[in-house]
Amino acid sequence: MSERIIDAISGPDDLKVLTDEELALVADEIRAQIIETTAKNGGHVGSSLGAVEIILALHAELDCPRDKIVYDVGHQAYAHKILTGRLAQFDTLRKQGGISGFPKPSESPYDVHPSGHASDSLSVALGLAKARDLRGSRERIVAVIGDAAISGGMAFEALNQIGQDQTQMVIILNDNEMSISRNVGALMQHFGEMRALNEYRDSRDSMQRKLESAGPLARFTLEWGRNAKDSVKHFFLPERTMIFEQLGITCTAPIDGHDITALRRVLRTVMHTHGPTLVHVVTKKGAGYVPAMRKPETFHGIGPFDAKTGEPVPKPAAAPKYMDVFGDALLREARLDGDIVAITAAMKGGTGLSAFANEFPHRFIDVGITEEHAVGLASGLAIGGKKPVVAIYSTFLQRAIDQMAIDVALANFNVVFAIDRAGLVGDDGPTHNGLYDLVYTRMIPNMRVFVPSDEAELVNGLHTALKLEGPVAIRYPRGEGRGVPIPEHPQMLELGKARTVREGDDVALLAFGTMVAQAQAAAELLAEQGVQARVVDMRWAKPLDLDAIRAAAQTRLVVTLEEGVVTGGVGEGILCALSGEGLQVPTLVLGLPDAYVPQGKVPALYHEVGLDAEGIAAAVRARL
Amino acid sequence: MSERIIDAISGPDDLKVLTDEELALVADEIRAQIIETTAKNGGHVGSSLGAVEIILALHAELDCPRDKIVYDVGHQAYAHKILTGRLAQFDTLRKQGGISGFPKPSESPYDVHPSGHASDSLSVALGLAKARDLRGSRERIVAVIGDAAISGGMAFEALNQIGQDQTQMVIILNDNEMSISRNVGALMQHFGEMRALNEYRDSRDSMQRKLESAGPLARFTLEWGRNAKDSVKHFFLPERTMIFEQLGITCTAPIDGHDITALRRVLRTVMHTHGPTLVHVVTKKGAGYVPAMRKPETFHGIGPFDAKTGEPVPKPAAAPKYMDVFGDALLREARLDGDIVAITAAMKGGTGLSAFANEFPHRFIDVGITEEHAVGLASGLAIGGKKPVVAIYSTFLQRAIDQMAIDVALANFNVVFAIDRAGLVGDDGPTHNGLYDLVYTRMIPNMRVFVPSDEAELVNGLHTALKLEGPVAIRYPRGEGRGVPIPEHPQMLELGKARTVREGDDVALLAFGTMVAQAQAAAELLAEQGVQARVVDMRWAKPLDLDAIRAAAQTRLVVTLEEGVVTGGVGEGILCALSGEGLQVPTLVLGLPDAYVPQGKVPALYHEVGLDAEGIAAAVRARL
Repeated sequence: MSERIIDAISGPDDLKVLTDEELALVADEIRAQIIETTAKNGGHVGSSLGAVEIILALHAELDCPRDKIVYDVGHQAYAHKILTGRLAQFDTLRKQGGISGFPKPSESPYDVHPSGHASDSLSVALGLAKARDLRGSRERIVAVIGDAAISGGMAFEALNQIGQDQTQMVIILNDNEMSISRNVGALMQHFGEMRALNEYRDSRDSMQRKLESAGPLARFTLEWGRNAKDSVKHFFLPERTMIFEQLGITCTAPIDGHDITALRRVLRTVMHTHGPTLVHVVTKKGAGYVPAMRKPETFHGIGPFDAKTGEPVPKPAAAPKYMDVFGDALLREARLDGDIVAITAAMKGGTGLSAFANEFPHRFIDVGITEEHAVGLASGLAIGGKKPVVAIYSTFLQRAIDQMAIDVALANFNVVFAIDRAGLVGDDGPTHNGLYDLVYTRMIPNMRVFVPSDEAELVNGLHTALKLEGPVAIRYPRGEGRGVPIPEHPQMLELGKARTVREGDDVALLAFGTMVAQAQAAAELLAEQGVQARVVDMRWAKPLDLDAIRAAAQTRLVVTLEEGVVTGGVGEGILCALSGEGLQVPTLVLGLPDAYVPQGKVPALYHEVGLDAEGIAAAVRARL
Repeated sequence: MSERIIDAISGPDDLKVLTDEELALVADEIRAQIIETTAKNGGHVGSSLGAVEIILALHAELDCPRDKIVYDVGHQAYAHKILTGRLAQFDTLRKQGGISGFPKPSESPYDVHPSGHASDSLSVALGLAKARDLRGSRERIVAVIGDAAISGGMAFEALNQIGQDQTQMVIILNDNEMSISRNVGALMQHFGEMRALNEYRDSRDSMQRKLESAGPLARFTLEWGRNAKDSVKHFFLPERTMIFEQLGITCTAPIDGHDITALRRVLRTVMHTHGPTLVHVVTKKGAGYVPAMRKPETFHGIGPFDAKTGEPVPKPAAAPKYMDVFGDALLREARLDGDIVAITAAMKGGTGLSAFANEFPHRFIDVGITEEHAVGLASGLAIGGKKPVVAIYSTFLQRAIDQMAIDVALANFNVVFAIDRAGLVGDDGPTHNGLYDLVYTRMIPNMRVFVPSDEAELVNGLHTALKLEGPVAIRYPRGEGRGVPIPEHPQMLELGKARTVREGDDVALLAFGTMVAQAQAAAELLAEQGVQARVVDMRWAKPLDLDAIRAAAQTRLVVTLEEGVVTGGVGEGILCALSGEGLQVPTLVLGLPDAYVPQGKVPALYHEVGLDAEGIAAAVRARL
C-alpha cells in the first residue's frame, strides 16, 4: 500500500504534476481502493467505478474548491472523496460517524451540494454560474450528470433555461447506458443514436485515424474533424444533431470516458467555449471490475461483498424483506385482478417488482427517474378504469406530492401508493431517509394511510387498499420483516380500525408500523418495573381510530410512536383527535426529531433518537 | 340571444351536422358569451378565447365523452364547458355553488381530469391511452397543452415515455407565444423557429398556394407538401426538425389555430396516424377580443371588466395588496443589498415583482412554469453567496417540496421562500387554494416559517428573513392587506417570538396570519358575552413561541387558528408543544377542514368553514 501514488495526494493540486500515464495508474489505485472499501462497507460501486477517469480529469484540469463540480446523484463521487483529502477516512464510508456516501458540504469544501436526489445538478450549477456572473468572477462550473438523471423533468427545466441564457458552464453527460434498473425513455434511445453515429463516423474517417497517431497537434486538430476549419469547433456535433443542440447547448461527439488524455483535452477546450457546453462521455458502469460490469444492477447499490468474486457476503436472513413481500403480494393480487397495473420510477428491483414485470410485462411500467410523471400516469390509468399501484421510495415520492394531491386525491381516483423505504434507511443517510411521508400523505384530503407493523399486515393492507375506493398510501420500511407467516388468503381490514396487541391500563402506547415491535419490547421493560403498558397497533394513520384513542385516554399516559418526523406527523394528529374529543390527558409524542438523522445502522439510529425499547421505556418513565 | 346557434347545442353531437362556416359562427357566439360572462365574473379570458376553434374542432371530430380530451391548465376550457351542456349555467362560472373555472370530473362526464396545475396533461393522457390499450378499446385520447406548460419538467418526462412507447395519442400544442408572464426558455425559442420555418416555406411554395385554391383534394394533398409522395406524411415536419421528432413524436408543421377547416382536416389525419402525434397549432391569446389581444398579461386572469372597453371595473381598494407590498419591500431591500436575487416561476406580475424586474433585470429570474428548477437554482445561487428569494404561489410550490428539503434545507442554505396566495384564493377554487404550505414548510428541519398578520408584518418579516442564516419561508395571502402603515424602516423581528395584540385571561386565541384579524373580531364578540379573550399574533409557525404557549395554557381554553389544513398544521404543532411542556389544558384547533374547499368569495368561504368572527366565537363558546 505504501507504494501507491494516491497516498501522496493530499488534494487536487497534486494531480497537476502527474502525466496522463501516471493519472491512469492513479485511476487503477482509486478503483482498487473503492472495491476494497465497498466490499467491506457496501456502497454504490458501479457508478463510482464508472466515473473515476471523469473525476480525475476534472480535478487535473480544474482549480477546486474555487471551481465547482456539482455531482448529480452524488454516490458516483467516491473518487472525488479520495482525491480531496479523504483517503485516510475512506474506510469509514457510509458508517455511523464516518464520511458520507454522498457529497456533503459540511464534510469538505470540495463538496458543493448535498446531492442525493436525481436531476438537480443542472439547476444548482446554473445558480452557481449566475452567482459567478453577477459577481463578475471567473470560476468554472461543471455539472456531472448521468443519462438516467438527465431525463428527469427538473434537469430538462434547467436545460431549457441554460440554453436560453447561454450561461457559461460545462455539463458532463456520463452516459453509461444504465440507471438503477434498465434505462427508459426516448432520450436514452437518442443517446444511443448519438453513440452509433459517432462509431459510424469513426470507422469511416480512416484517414483521420491514421493521423491520430501522427502526433498530438494533428490528433488535436483532426480527432473528430471532417472538414477541419476550426480546431475547436470540431470537437462538437454538427448543429441540430442532438436534442440539446436544439435547446442552444453546444454538444461534443461522444468520447471515451475512460481515456484520461481524451477527457483532459476536451475539458481544456470546453472550459474556454462561450456559453453552455455538454460533453457526451461514454462510460462503463463498474469499469475495471468484472463482477460489477457483468451485474450492473446488483452493483448499483450493494452490501458487503467478496472483492475477489463479487459475490455478496451472505447475510443470515431472519425474514423476507418488506419489498419482496410487497412484490409477491402484488403479483398474487394481479393474477386475480386484471386491472392492476404496477408503476415504478427506476426502482423495479428495489421495490420488489421484478417478478411482476416478468409475468405481466404489459401491466408493469418503469417510467425512469420521473416521479411526477409516474403519479400523473397513474391518475390517467385510474380514470381509464385501471387500478394503478405506484411503488416509489418515501424520499423520492417527495418529488410528486403535488401530483398526489391535485392529480389523484382531488377527484378521489383509485390509486395505491406503495411507499417503500419509509423511515430510516441506514447507510445512505439524510437524503434517503423517508422522514416525511406520514406528514405529506396525511395532509391530503381523501387520502387514506395504512402503516403495516409486519409483513402479514402489509399483505392484508395492500389487499384492502386495492378494494377501497379512492387513494390509499401504504408506507413500510426498508429491510426485513418480523418473520411472521404470510397469510395465504389476504384479508380485508376495516378502514380506520386499530388492533390492540398487548393489554395494559397504566399507559397506552399508540404505535405505527415499525414502532409496534419497539413498543412491545418497551412494554416488556415497563412491565418489569410494574408499569402495565397497552400496545396498540394503530394500523391507519388516516383515518385514525377514535375508539382506540378514547380508550387510551383512560390510562395515565397516551404515548404516540412513529418512525417519521414528529413535526406534522401522526402523533400530532392523535393529539388533535384528543383535543377534538375534549379529552385532557398526559401525552408523549415520540418519533424522529426535527433534524436530519445521519447515516448509520438502523438499530443504532433508533437508539440514538430514543426509539428503541430502552429509549421508549425511559421516556415513558420520565413522563410518568 | 334566441337567434344563437349555441342555444340549440345540447352537446358535441349537435356540432357534427354543422358546416365549417356555421362552426365559425358558433366560435363567434362562444367568444361573445365568454366575454359577457367573464366581464361580470372575471376569469381566464385570454387563453379561453385563444382556444375556441381548437375546442370546436375537437368536439366536431371526436366522440366525447367516449373519446377523452385532457386540458392542461384547464382554465382554457370555457368553450368546452359551453359546448358540453353547460351554457345555461355558464353565468355561474367561478361563483360559489356555480360551475368551476377548471374542468371538474364531478361536474360533467366530459371533464376528464381536474386540471389546475400545469404540465400534467401528457402524463394523464398517456395513462388513459395505456388503459385503453390494455383494455383493447379504441377511443381517442387528446391532450391540449400550451407552449408554456409543455416546458415544465413533468411534461418532458411524459414526452420521453410517449416517444419511447409509441402510444397512439394526439398532443395539441397550443402555441400562443405567451404564458402567464413572458415566455421563457430555449424551447420557446425553438417554437418560434418552427413558426418562422413554416412561414418561409409557405411563402416559397407559391405554386402550392395556387393549388390550394384548386379544390379540396388538391388542397389536402399539397397544403404542406413539397415533394408529395404520401398525402398523410406531408402534414408533418421533416424528420428531426423539431425537438419532439427526435423523441419519436411525429410533429405537424405549425397550423393556424383559428382556422376551423384546417384544424379539422389535420385532426382527421392525425387521429389515424400510428403512434403519438403532436399538432403544432398557433393561436393568438385573446383572439377576437381586441383588449385581450392588446393586453395579454392583464387578460390572463382578470376580475370583472367593462366588456366594451376592456377596462377593469375599478374596485375601491381599502389597502394595497400583499403581493405589491412584498414586491415593493423586496425592491427596497435589494437597493440596499446587492446580493438579493428574485426568482419566480411565470408569476412576475402575480408576485408583485414587475418593478423589481425593471430595476434589476440581472437580479430577476423568471424560470417559467418550472418550480422544481426554481428552487434548485436558488440553492446554487445561495451556495454562490447570493440571497435568493423564491416567490411562488403556495399551491404551485407544492411542486418543489422535495427541493426545499433536499436542495436547500438539508445543508441550511440561505434561501427565502415568499409563498404568495397562501390559504384560500377564492374564485379559482380547490386546485389553487394554498392549503398545505404550513404543513410542508413546518415538516422540514432547519426551515423557519413566518406568517405575517398584516402588510407591515410582511415587510418586517421579509427584512428579518433576509438577515437570518438558513432557509426561511414567509406565507401570506392573496388580496388586500389590512391598511396598516408600511414601516419606513423595516425592523428586525425576534425569531420565534409572538406578540399579544389583545389581553384577556379567559381564553387564549393563538392566531396565525389572516386569522389574527378574525380572532380580534371574535374576541370583540366574546367580550360582549363576558368572555375575555387574549389574542396572540403568533408570527412564527416555526419555531413556535413556547412562552406564549405556556402563558396561554393558564387560561381556560387554548384556541389555535390558521388558514391552512388542520391535519399536520401548526395548530397540531401547538398541541405538541403543550404536550412537550407537560401541560394538560382544554384546546380547540381551528383551521381549514380535511376536505377540498370549493370556489367562492373568501369571506363567504371563511363563514362556511367557521373561520369568520362568528364561527370562531361560536366554536369557543361551545367548547367552554
